[in-house]
This record gives sequence, C-alpha cells and structure tokens, in this order.
Amino acid sequence: MIRYGMVGGGPNAFIGDVHRTAIRMNNDAQLVAGCFSRDYNKSLKFGQSLNIDEDRLYSDFKEMAENEAARDDGIQFVVCVTPNISHYEVCKAFLEAGINVVCDKPLTWTAKQSEELIKIQHKNSLLFGVTYTYTGYPAVKEMRNLVQKGEIGKLRFVNAEYPQGWLSEPIDENSKLAPWRMDPKISGATNCLGDIGTHIENLVSFVTGLKISKVCARLDSLVEGRTLDDNASILVDYEGGAKGIYWSSQIAQGYDNAVRIRIFGEKGSLEWVQEDPDHFIFTTNDCAKRIVSRGRDEFDPSAQKYSRLPAGHQEGIYEAFANIYKGYISALKKSLNNEIVDEKTVDYPTAQMGLDGVKYVEKCLLSNEKGSVWISME
Amino acid sequence: MIRYGMVGGGPNAFIGDVHRTAIRMNNDAQLVAGCFSRDYNKSLKFGQSLNIDEDRLYSDFKEMAENEAARDDGIQFVVCVTPNISHYEVCKAFLEAGINVVCDKPLTWTAKQSEELIKIQHKNSLLFGVTYTYTGYPAVKEMRNLVQKGEIGKLRFVNAEYPQGWLSEPIDENSKLAPWRMDPKISGATNCLGDIGTHIENLVSFVTGLKISKVCARLDSLVEGRTLDDNASILVDYEGGAKGIYWSSQIAQGYDNAVRIRIFGEKGSLEWVQEDPDHFIFTTNDCAKRIVSRGRDEFDPSAQKYSRLPAGHQEGIYEAFANIYKGYISALKKSLNNEIVDEKTVDYPTAQMGLDGVKYVEKCLLSNEKGSVWISME
Amino acid sequence: MIRYGMVGGGPNAFIGDVHRTAIRMNNDAQLVAGCFSRDYNKSLKFGQSLNIDEDRLYSDFKEMAENEAARDDGIQFVVCVTPNISHYEVCKAFLEAGINVVCDKPLTWTAKQSEELIKIQHKNSLLFGVTYTYTGYPAVKEMRNLVQKGEIGKLRFVNAEYPQGWLSEPIDENSKLAPWRMDPKISGATNCLGDIGTHIENLVSFVTGLKISKVCARLDSLVEGRTLDDNASILVDYEGGAKGIYWSSQIAQGYDNAVRIRIFGEKGSLEWVQEDPDHFIFTTNDCAKRIVSRGRDEFDPSAQKYSRLPAGHQEGIYEAFANIYKGYISALKKSLNNEIVDEKTVDYPTAQMGLDGVKYVEKCLLSNEKGSVWISME
Amino acid sequence: MIRYGMVGGGPNAFIGDVHRTAIRMNNDAQLVAGCFSRDYNKSLKFGQSLNIDEDRLYSDFKEMAENEAARDDGIQFVVCVTPNISHYEVCKAFLEAGINVVCDKPLTWTAKQSEELIKIQHKNSLLFGVTYTYTGYPAVKEMRNLVQKGEIGKLRFVNAEYPQGWLSEPIDENSKLAPWRMDPKISGATNCLGDIGTHIENLVSFVTGLKISKVCARLDSLVEGRTLDDNASILVDYEGGAKGIYWSSQIAQGYDNAVRIRIFGEKGSLEWVQEDPDHFIFTTNDCAKRIVSRGRDEFDPSAQKYSRLPAGHQEGIYEAFANIYKGYISALKKSLNNEIVDEKTVDYPTAQMGLDGVKYVEKCLLSNEKGSVWISME
Repeated sequence: MIRYGMVGGGPNAFIGDVHRTAIRMNNDAQLVAGCFSRDYNKSLKFGQSLNIDEDRLYSDFKEMAENEAARDDGIQFVVCVTPNISHYEVCKAFLEAGINVVCDKPLTWTAKQSEELIKIQHKNSLLFGVTYTYTGYPAVKEMRNLVQKGEIGKLRFVNAEYPQGWLSEPIDENSKLAPWRMDPKISGATNCLGDIGTHIENLVSFVTGLKISKVCARLDSLVEGRTLDDNASILVDYEGGAKGIYWSSQIAQGYDNAVRIRIFGEKGSLEWVQEDPDHFIFTTNDCAKRIVSRGRDEFDPSAQKYSRLPAGHQEGIYEAFANIYKGYISALKKSLNNEIVDEKTVDYPTAQMGLDGVKYVEKCLLSNEKGSVWISME
Repeated sequence: MIRYGMVGGGPNAFIGDVHRTAIRMNNDAQLVAGCFSRDYNKSLKFGQSLNIDEDRLYSDFKEMAENEAARDDGIQFVVCVTPNISHYEVCKAFLEAGINVVCDKPLTWTAKQSEELIKIQHKNSLLFGVTYTYTGYPAVKEMRNLVQKGEIGKLRFVNAEYPQGWLSEPIDENSKLAPWRMDPKISGATNCLGDIGTHIENLVSFVTGLKISKVCARLDSLVEGRTLDDNASILVDYEGGAKGIYWSSQIAQGYDNAVRIRIFGEKGSLEWVQEDPDHFIFTTNDCAKRIVSRGRDEFDPSAQKYSRLPAGHQEGIYEAFANIYKGYISALKKSLNNEIVDEKTVDYPTAQMGLDGVKYVEKCLLSNEKGSVWISME
Repeated sequence: MIRYGMVGGGPNAFIGDVHRTAIRMNNDAQLVAGCFSRDYNKSLKFGQSLNIDEDRLYSDFKEMAENEAARDDGIQFVVCVTPNISHYEVCKAFLEAGINVVCDKPLTWTAKQSEELIKIQHKNSLLFGVTYTYTGYPAVKEMRNLVQKGEIGKLRFVNAEYPQGWLSEPIDENSKLAPWRMDPKISGATNCLGDIGTHIENLVSFVTGLKISKVCARLDSLVEGRTLDDNASILVDYEGGAKGIYWSSQIAQGYDNAVRIRIFGEKGSLEWVQEDPDHFIFTTNDCAKRIVSRGRDEFDPSAQKYSRLPAGHQEGIYEAFANIYKGYISALKKSLNNEIVDEKTVDYPTAQMGLDGVKYVEKCLLSNEKGSVWISME
Repeated sequence: MIRYGMVGGGPNAFIGDVHRTAIRMNNDAQLVAGCFSRDYNKSLKFGQSLNIDEDRLYSDFKEMAENEAARDDGIQFVVCVTPNISHYEVCKAFLEAGINVVCDKPLTWTAKQSEELIKIQHKNSLLFGVTYTYTGYPAVKEMRNLVQKGEIGKLRFVNAEYPQGWLSEPIDENSKLAPWRMDPKISGATNCLGDIGTHIENLVSFVTGLKISKVCARLDSLVEGRTLDDNASILVDYEGGAKGIYWSSQIAQGYDNAVRIRIFGEKGSLEWVQEDPDHFIFTTNDCAKRIVSRGRDEFDPSAQKYSRLPAGHQEGIYEAFANIYKGYISALKKSLNNEIVDEKTVDYPTAQMGLDGVKYVEKCLLSNEKGSVWISME
C-alpha cells in the first residue's frame, strides 16, 4: 500500500471525499496523514474519524510537510484539495520537502507560480499531477488513441462546451451557493472560466494534442448583481491551422455537468458527452455513425485497462478520479523503485498541463479585459 | 384557389419542387405560370409537365411579370427560386409589376439591394416573404410564444448552431457537390455563412426578438484548396445586454442538418433541434426538464393551428415550408380583399427579415476580413 | 395524371385528408369523384370545396362505382376510408365494378370477407392495396433489404411494440375521443389490437418475411368502465423456430405513436422507432452499433428511391403515405398499360397482407377469449 | 468500522471485487476474514493480498462460520458470492452460527431452500440481504416513492425488459463465456431467466409493490446447440388486476445491460433505463413529459440521501451496490445496538425478496415446461 496524506478536504469539503473515495476504490493507497483544518481540534477530530493516527494530524501544512518528510514511514504523496488560493503555497511546501504531489485544478492563480512549482518538482525529481477529472474516462483515452492513430485524419475544428445551470439564480442568504464564490478576493479574477472553462482547455488538449496559438474571449456576468463571470465564449486558433470554439456556462438551465467535445478531422469526427461517459460517437467519411462503447467494442489496451466493468454497467466520476490515481500511482511505484519516469509517457494530467491551463485563463482574461480582442498565447 | 407563378425551379432544381409540393399540401394555391429556364423550350416542356398552359410559360422573367400583371387571371404571387445572384432582379421585376413575391433566402447579395426592394414593396403595397424554413415549425412558433409571454424571463444567452457534414471532402469531378458552389463568381463572398449561417441569425431573431448590436466573426476554409468558407464561428452581442454564439459548418461529419438553438433566460431555458422538429425542451428554475410536443401538449392557438397531425406522427420540412405558405396566403387573402395587412402581425418571414439577414452576413464578412474584430451592426 | 375517387373522408374525417394530401405530394393523381357522406348535400358541398365536378359527387357508393365504371374518364382507382365496418361492402362494390381499390386497414371485420374480396380482385385482375402506413418509410424498406440479404443472419427473435397514451383517461362527454370508439357495435370486437396491434403484425411481416405459426394473446381493458381492449400483449411463435413478443397499448402515457421494432438474428440486429423514422440502428457481431440514415448512408436503390429529401431534412407520415401511393400508382400504370403485375414484386401492402392482418386479429381474439391460450394460425 | 467476511470472490471472480469495492466506497466496514477458495493456499495468498490476517483466512466456509462466531472480534456479517449452487449451504452455515448474511442473487436453487434459510434467519434474529443491484439507485427509490404517494395513480400495466447481447454467438473454446455457464449441472435449469430475468421480477416488485398472481412463460434457446435458455418472454398477471410483460435476453445485439422498466397507472407513468441510471421519465396526464434527475430535482429524503454527487456527475453500478450496503449496514448498526429491526422498514433487498425471486423462476420454468401455459403463483 502506498501511503498518502491530504491537505484540505475537511468535513464539509465535498471534493476531498471524492478523492479519498476514488483512491479507496483502487485499494492501492492508504490515507495516513492529514491537515484537514487550520484549527487543530477540527483537523484532529476529522482525521480520527478517518482512522488516522493522532500524531499525523496537523493544522499547519508546512509542519506536516516537514514531519512527514522526516519519517521513515512518511507519506509518499500528498493530495492538495484546499481552496484554489492556497494551492501554490501548499504544493510548494511539499515539493520542497521532497514529497510527490497531486493537486486539484486550477493548479495556481498565476502561471508564474505554476512555473516556479514545476522547477522545484524537476529539481527534486518528483511526480506532480493535477486532477483534471475528465481525462480519466476510458472513452476519452480511446478518442485520444484514435486521433493519434490518424483515424479521423488531420484535425480541422473543435467545438467544446461545458454548460451547467446551477448558478442561474442570484445568490442570496438561502442559496445553495456560498456567496464567497462570487467574491473576487477569494475566488480570483474569474469564476466560470477558471472553474469549468479550464476543463475544456485541458480536455481538448488531452484528446487532440492541439496547441492554442491565440484566443478571443468574451466573459459575461449574466446574472444581475454578479461581479465575476458566469458564462464564457472563446474563439480559439490552434497552431497548424485548426480552429475551435469553447463555451462554458453556469447559467444554462437544463444542463447539469454537460461537458461535450466534438472534434472534426479530414477523415471523420469524434463526439463525447460527459453525462454518458462510457460511449462516444465515431463518424468517418466511409461508414455510418457509430456509437462506440467501453467494454463492448475494441479499445486500445492503453484505454481498455481502465474499463472496470462490462459494457452497460455505467461507470462515472468516481471511476474517472480513480483512473487518474491509478495512472499516478503506477508511475509513482516506478519512481519509488528508483526508475526514471519520463513525463511524456505517464498517464495522468501533469503539472505542465496545469500550467497550460493557468496560462490559458490568464490570456483569456487579458483578451476579455481589452474588449474581447485576439491575444497570442506567447 | 390562389394563383401563383414560379421563376426558377426547373427540372433539376431540388428546392423548386419542395416549394411546389409544400404548396400542394395546403391545397389553397395553384401553379398557373412559370419561367423555369432561360431556354424557352426547356421552360415550356417542364411547365407542361406541371399542367401549366403554354401561353403562361416563359423564358424571360420580365416578360412574365408584365404579361401576368396584365392578365385578369394573372398570378397573385410569384415564387422566386433562382440562384441567389438573380434574386434581386427577379424580385424587382415582379414588385414593380405590382405582383406579390415570395423569395428564397438569402434575399439578395447586398443589403442595399434588399432595401431597394423593400421600398418598392411598400410603394406598391405588396406582400413580400422570404422562405426561412425553420420558422414554419409549430414548435418554433411556440418557443417564440413562451419567450414573448416571459416564461423564461429576460433573455441572457443564446447558443445556436447549424452543423452539416456533406462538404467535408474536397470537391472533384465525381463529387456530389457542383464545383460552382465554391466559385466566388457564382456563389458570392461566402458559402457556409451565407447558405446556412444566415438561417441561425433568422431563427434566433424570430424566436427571441433579440437585435444584434455587434459581431465578431471568424470564417474558415477548412478543406484544402477551398476558397470560400465552409465553417463559421461568430460571437454576437445583442442590444440590451444578452450575448450569443453562432456556429455553422459544412465539414461536421456525423451531422446532417442539425440546426440547434438554445436560449437561456432569467427563469428558464428552451432548446430545439431541427432533426426532431416536433419537440422542444423547456426547463424552468422550478420544474424538471420537460419534453414538450406539438399535438400532445398545450400550445398557444397561434402555434397549434400549424400542427397537422396528432403527436407522434412526425412532421418535417415539407410541412414547415407549407406552414410558411399558409401564413403568407392567409395574409395575401386579406390583402386581395383590400384589407390592410400590418407586417408586424403577419406569420411568415418578411423581406425585412431578409434584409436583416443580408446585413448580418455583410457585417460578419467585414469582421472576418479585418481579422475577426468586433463590428457594430450600425 | 391518374384519376381517383374517394369513399368516406368527409369534412371531419382526419385520415381522408391525409390520403388526399399524400397523393397531392406525389402530383401524379387527381381526385375527380367522391362519396363523402350518405347525405347528398354534405357530399356535394364537401366535394365542391375540393374542386370536384358536381356530377361526380355521390351519396351512394354503389351508384358511384357503377357510374364511374361506365364513364370513359372514370376513376382509375378508389380510396376507401370509411369506418372499418363498411370497408367490406365498399371494396366489394368497386372491385365488382372493375375498379382498382386502396383501402384503409384493417381491411375487413372478418377474414372470410377479405378472402372473398381477394377472389373478386383476382377474377377481375385488379390491384388492391391496404394502407399500412409504416411500410412506406425508406428506412423500413432498407431494413427489409438487409434482412433479405442476410446481413443479420437467420432470424431469432422479434420484439415489437406500439404504445400510445391518448386513451389513458376514461371517455366522457368532453373527451377528445368519440364514445363510439369503445362501442363494440361500431368498432367491432377489438379496439387496441385491431386499430394499432395490427400495424405491428404487418410491419414485422413486411420487414422479416416471418410467418406466424401460433399466438398466445392477452387483451386488457385497463381503464375503468371500458368494454373493449386498450392494451394487448401477445406471444408469437413463427414458422422455422423464431419467436416474438408484440405489445400495443393506448394507455401508455408518455408515448404518442411510438411504433418500435427490434429484430435479432444470428449475425446482428436492427431497430427502428417510428417517431424517428429516417434512421435505424444496425448492430452486427463485428462492428459497433451504427445509426444509419436515409439519404446519408448507402441504401439499396429499391429503398433509396423513396427518399425525397437530403438526410437531416425530416420526412414523416405524409411522405410514408405518399410512398405507398407511389408504389401503388407505379404498379397501376403498368396495369393500365396492360402489363401483367405480379403481386410478389409490387411495392405496396397488398390485400393479401390485409387478410393476414385480419386473420391475426381473429386468432388473437380467440386466444384471449379462451383464457390467453395458444392458438394455431391454421 | 463494521467487520465483515467474504465467502467466494477469489482472484478471478469479477463480482467479489465489485462487492468489496462498493463497501470500501462507503468506508464503514472492513474486510477482516475470508474463504476465497477451497484450496487453502489460494485462499491464503489472495486474502493476504487484501491485508487480511492469516488466521482469518479459510478454505472451509463451515470452519470460518464457527471460528468467526467464536471470536470476540468476529465478523458482523458475511458476504456470500460463491457460484449459485452453493449459496444455500454457505448461507445456512453462517445463519446457524448466528452471523448476519448478504448473499448474491438468485438466493438459492429452490424456493424450499430459501424458505428454510429465512426460518433460521428469524429464529436467530439476523439480517439477511440479497444484492439485487438495481434497487440501489436513487432514481429507482424515488420512483417507488412516487408510486407509493399515488402520483401515477392505481397501477395498470408494467413493461419491463432486460436485454443483453453478449451471448449471441455460440460458445466455443475461444469464447469469452465459460462453457459451464450453459451446463445445466452447474448452472441449474435456467440461464437467462435465472440470471437476469429475476432482476426484472425484483425491480418491478420493489418499485410497484405489485404481487404476481400468475405467469405464462416461454423460455427459448435461440443459439444453435444451446441447452439452457438465452431468451425469456413472460406474461404476468398481478393481484388486483394490473398486467405485465417481462422480456429478458442474452442474444439481443446492440444491448449491453439495458434493464428498462415502464410503469403505467391511472394518472401517469414512469420509465427508467439502467444505462442512464441517474434519470427517469415522469409523465402525468396533466403535464408534459419530464426528465427527472437525482441531484437536480426534488426527491424524497429517503431517496435523496443515496445521491452522492451533484446531478450530471454520473453514478453507476458501484454506487448502486454501495447503496445496498449502506442500507444494510444502517440496519445492522441498529441490530448490533440491540434495537429491533422491522424488515418492512429496511432499505435493502431482503431474503424474502430473494425467496420471491426463486419462486418466480420456479413457476416460470413450470409454465414453460408445460407448453407455456398459465401457472398460478400459489
């Protein structure tokens, strides 16, 4: 069993529990240390409810990084699920202490911060992953394979969207949404783009390998009284001539978490919707539209190995998260075994992808600020 | 029976037959004159196959306009289904002769031409319609009603698309696509935007009543060797603060004629896909997502009257066309009866909408030409 | 233009108008005579509204048969769309007068009546069609081709259903359903089975060629106070070992006219739903599930020729009806041209299929009456 | 942490891992003992890979039952995931030893065996669950609530099906299907009906509360050379006048695990498909068809509490299994706390449901054997 720790993810933190549950599904790592609150008693109490020993429960993540680094049975990686604003300092503390890291997205507030973290990572030869969930699905991995094998030819156009409807009403005292979410001091300069728009950027990049050369972004605050964006429409040009449109929204009633990606190439197209994650649609110029399924249809072994159940037995978000950890821990085992891990061959989203995401958000914000003009990624 | 004539729509013209068939479905107008070719013998032969009298078959549309205007039993309206390039002169000839006109979209090549035609129309008190097909569906009309009644509240965002896949391969001798389609001398400055993108502009305007204030358009020629656009991505700002994205494409394999419109407001949203025209999805903040059907569910009588068959008995494009003619002929009967017809109350797409469409295309072309910058509609 | 007449289908008769509209779509036959009511003035008035000459409007269908048979320009076929109870006598009158017939389904009340009509038909060398609508769709015809070509191998199992929801509430004064529909004196011994269940039998037979050897039928009257069936569940054994289940219902809320047929063979399966008539799903043991479309994908020319519009331009019930008439009139032209028409090669539902349908209903009623036991079709 | 053990579920046993993973997701029970093989070394090796202490790994389930019952820290329940043939003896051993049991379905080979086990259960005041997976979904639980609250009125008709395609080809040496699956000596008198048909019976009973009064069953072996059934069609009469049809199949290409249930009542209907488990369709006579979602829409708290993720974040089979264990362990905690647990109020499938399932299979087999005649459930 690999030993891991967690920073953040306390009693009311939804996503921390998702990470822990996903890791338990794999049954290859054990949570043995945690800093679940800046209030020691809270961290202690919650950690004990998770069967963690008292002496490995902390209220100060820096202390945790130092102590765990010093122990013989110290954690082998840490999961950082704190609010976005503190990702940078948490990751830095652990990377500097020589501990491998998995961090929630977005990696940091500024690209400069991500670049700094990656330097430390490389200096200390560590593994540093970012949990872009949707890359964990077998169907997404197989679409990447089909693109790489040239099954749809040279890429021409991408239409990707991420509509949600849960923020379509103004926030008030009684709303399900905490008011801080729309407070720029806490949430940074963007809400919709940074929270979900960044998933689109990552997912398209993961599946297609396309590099964005420039963007033209319009961020909207469509609900009255809202200061941060709740809707974002972005025109994207890629290196090599392909083009794209990305749309993300939190005011799209009728949509829950409907990530959708459509990729068109010279020879065919691919389409995938996150709410039906086991399948994708594969169309080629010479065959009728096919509905391809994990489990049922032939996948490349590199994708197939993430399929846990027979076709028709729905897998979901927990499995996608678990698959990211499966990829991460597989590389980690090599690394712990003193093998050299080439980041180009790993099968989890890396800090480099995290940096790309932060850069993308920065450029989109700049574009929007200047009146939705075109901004080069360089 | 109303008497009508047709210009264009000869033996190999697909769309001419669609117009004639749609009108026959309604059984309220009869084709009695035609100019089906500039070659008299061809026009004669084809017209006779449609049971039209020899003396009302022409090879010159101007002669037809004059002759028919002079007859006691002359046509009461003409349908213009010639190639786009000649819409202007055909419409002009009939309007000047005092004959009502229905013209295919796009109305003309330039906005100035449309404006001129509308002036003649008004001077001669004529009815002048443009066959934007998709406004003919009962479901589309009912969505308009719901918007007007405020059922989804103040509008915030529109995402509309029109993907087709049929031009995803290069055109060659053997292709199903005539090479002239991509020849700017014949087809004008745009293919995809002008042919199908303009349907999006019209459909959104029809359903929502929103006025575009500015556009940022990127037109792409994604198939190698192609000079005209086969894909168009457009950011749209509306008067009053709502925003939109429009995407049209002819290289989107897997899509046939998949017009889709999604409208989000303060209180709810509407979604409609042309390939399932009888239904739309209606979501409100306080009710689960509903699949509403023509025929099954309660529609406003103004939409319901266009429903011809019980729910579950699919209606399609022919019915949509027939509904546009039903609306047109209903107004025409009033006009022939010397009642004054207020264009604001008619239920068919007017020449004014045609003008809006041509303007929209012009501004998008200008935006694209300047590097996809924002262009005001004024 | 072929000349035809109509019996039934007066002002309030929904289906009569569908027949006339469908025939107009084809533009190859003209309605020149009619008996639209037993009340002469009603028949006259309605017929004149359809531009039929006064001297060819009748209140007595026998008189119509005789007169039309005697005229040089008499009708070349008659469409019988009277209430089911009078199909037999109307068809008989015209067949005996030597006039070709198209009759609505179910052909007659008893199999014996159908057999008698077919004898007269053959004696007088006439064409006799029955409008089983759903066989008119190109997708249905193509599925038949795929079965015949062995693409899904030897057939094993069929699951076919026809759920509707419109009779789920009791009938009262205000109901949309005329009370006579549930009156055995007018509607015969069955409502649901005879009205819609018979479409299933025909559709399966058309697509698969399977012959039923025995049935076990349970007919239910599920709405309180109803005497006739509104739901029918039937186990079917076919000659040669294949098996099937048929379900039809008029109390299935959420369903409008959802005919669905699923056919499973040794090598693959086919699935089609009437509410999305342009597509079918084709699955084989060696390929992912395909969504095949009229227009988009390759069809055998025998099916393709019924596709009127490009893929994505929805066709519906009117086109299905029109296709049946297209097949009928194509054979009729040969027959009028004194060519011999072999019923095995015609492409419209024949009276023989009508007889099969009536027999099927009789055997199901017998099975149900005896306690839902197995009844041989012989 | 509750302590549990497992019998069966060794290294190649797919379903054993699903049970363990589901329990780990809940994080409220720990696997501390196991009998994973009749070969001690295999059981030992596999158990150790799961971190189970050596002295709690067995090759004889009877020894396990006795030892564990005798320990102070003995298991608090056992999971039986052996081949169906040994369910009876395994369950019996543990129930007699006073240990609570969860057993895979079908509970036993004969109804008599199930009855005997239930007697022991009651004598020893134990909790005895059966893992009918599909009752674990929040959407299924909410449909049950809607039925119980009368939202669709008195029930009239049920159409339930469970099509799979994975056994559509003959079994040979190379097939993915172990040949023993079709060997009556190992698999009992039925394959399709017993394996998946029984899920239908349970699911309908769970959601509707309907009691079957009689059945008419036809079991088919549609693949050449097969002795056991791979397809089953069953007419069902319920007490109180409602009717149903059940279809299960393993030769239905195009279907993976497509459990579908449709329930029609006086006031409306419900429809749910297992491959989209988070949603169901709810139609009432006075509202358009609604797509209801776990998480998004209001559910009764008794169903809502099983929703783990926001709407749009797909949950699947693991969650369904985990929910069954959540219900079971919730009752178990009460029982261990010496509270009396009334089986009528528990929220997991009980042994009584297991018995109902076995009885149902027995009656269907009898019906089929006698020529698919009607058999009373008494």
